[in-house]
Amino acid sequence: MKIIGEKINGTRKAVAAAIANRDAEFIQNLAKKQVEGGAHWLDVNAGTHPDREVDDMLWLVDLIQGVSDVPLSLDSANPKALTAALSAVKKTPMINSISGEPDRLNNVLPIVAQHGCEVIALAMDDKGIPNSVEARLAVVRRLFEVTRAASVPDEKVYIDPLVMTIATNTECGVITLNTIQAVRAEFPQAHISLGLSNVSFGLPARSLVNRTFLTLAIAAGMDTAIIDPNDREMKAALFATDLLLGQDKHCLNYTRAFRKGLLEPAKQPA
Amino acid sequence: MKIIGEKINGTRKAVAAAIANRDAEFIQNLAKKQVEGGAHWLDVNAGTHPDREVDDMLWLVDLIQGVSDVPLSLDSANPKALTAALSAVKKTPMINSISGEPDRLNNVLPIVAQHGCEVIALAMDDKGIPNSVEARLAVVRRLFEVTRAASVPDEKVYIDPLVMTIATNTECGVITLNTIQAVRAEFPQAHISLGLSNVSFGLPARSLVNRTFLTLAIAAGMDTAIIDPNDREMKAALFATDLLLGQDKHCLNYTRAFRKGLLEPAKQPA
Repeated sequence: MKIIGEKINGTRKAVAAAIANRDAEFIQNLAKKQVEGGAHWLDVNAGTHPDREVDDMLWLVDLIQGVSDVPLSLDSANPKALTAALSAVKKTPMINSISGEPDRLNNVLPIVAQHGCEVIALAMDDKGIPNSVEARLAVVRRLFEVTRAASVPDEKVYIDPLVMTIATNTECGVITLNTIQAVRAEFPQAHISLGLSNVSFGLPARSLVNRTFLTLAIAAGMDTAIIDPNDREMKAALFATDLLLGQDKHCLNYTRAFRKGLLEPAKQPA
Repeated sequence: MKIIGEKINGTRKAVAAAIANRDAEFIQNLAKKQVEGGAHWLDVNAGTHPDREVDDMLWLVDLIQGVSDVPLSLDSANPKALTAALSAVKKTPMINSISGEPDRLNNVLPIVAQHGCEVIALAMDDKGIPNSVEARLAVVRRLFEVTRAASVPDEKVYIDPLVMTIATNTECGVITLNTIQAVRAEFPQAHISLGLSNVSFGLPARSLVNRTFLTLAIAAGMDTAIIDPNDREMKAALFATDLLLGQDKHCLNYTRAFRKGLLEPAKQPA
């Protein structure tokens, strides 16, 4: 399992304020903490101000690279922001994201192909998120047609099957899990990533639902999670799931995490 | 998901002492608490003293039935203890267990068939627990040959695929999960039960491993768990897993459990 650290996201209030106030320390701390927590990529989302996105993205990229060596996941559908960021990155980044929406696909895919990036591809199109496994898989098939036509190899594509909250439809979890299995079977070279916290929107005890869904999604074939790498309970579930699925040779990662105190509930602050 | 309450087991020290001292209150409290916790059956194991097992089993059965209406799971391979208990039960019990071991099968299966009991069938034989899915499935197939020949319908058979600790072999979890899927596919009328806590024997933070394995086993097709129905974290994982797999209409069980305070970590005793 690999982790995309989700915290540097300008749609979150505290991050938006840090960007607006040019609070470098806040952003760099988020970067350092996520790397310490085990992030393999750091997502970078400069927020929702198109007029400022290029400047804000460049400021974030420079700052983050000042304290971390892990590759970035450039989270934008704005080709100008992506192109500017690509001129500044030290390592080839992941692009987050394309989808079956024609505008997004036409704007972003050429950049992905030109720079040899990995890319997250959302299983949705201009009609929204399909309600069935078969319809979601149809979107995924069309996405692979265009990524292959653009010479992006399947192994650089991270399909996000998407999940909606089970608070409004209790089938939502199963649809996503079955989509993961279907994509894994049909496109074995591709990766599956998932921003999974939507699943619990509107429910109580969301952390329990999210970490349980993480376990189910890993078992179904997800190999990359978009999470907070310092969410202790999520990480504990991840270590235990990898262990139980035979992905942790000699239980080394699990026992090491235990010795670091990562598997038991955190002490309450005094 | 259904639950077999595991606590009244004479191989546990405190229960053995209660049986030896005829501590009725201790046993009846265990029964009441497990029923309150949601047990659908109460397992009754009188311990490992063949000379006393009949008396101890009868004492336990009478006591438990004095405070509870849920059916029992008579946990013994001793036909005398089983026959005595069957003459005392108010509801047709489950028998725990048969296996591919010829003695156990010849002694216990006729009693199961005669009384129309449900029965747990362990995926092992006189050569022990097979090390591969295919070999474990071969034992299961032979078990169904004999249960069917004895006119025990598949829907009364609860296959326990068995799990050994991943501390010594990290493939053990996967073997059990794949056995569950294979049994579910080949014998769709049968049930799958699992005493799952062995999976974490010798590991730290066992509760984390056990509840994560519960989630994986339910996703694979287990429908009955042999657990402590008052293990809060295990139950929380169970509610969340049922919810995420579309088994909890309108999220009713989940939200009801939340309102009862069952989904958040327990307060530390003062």
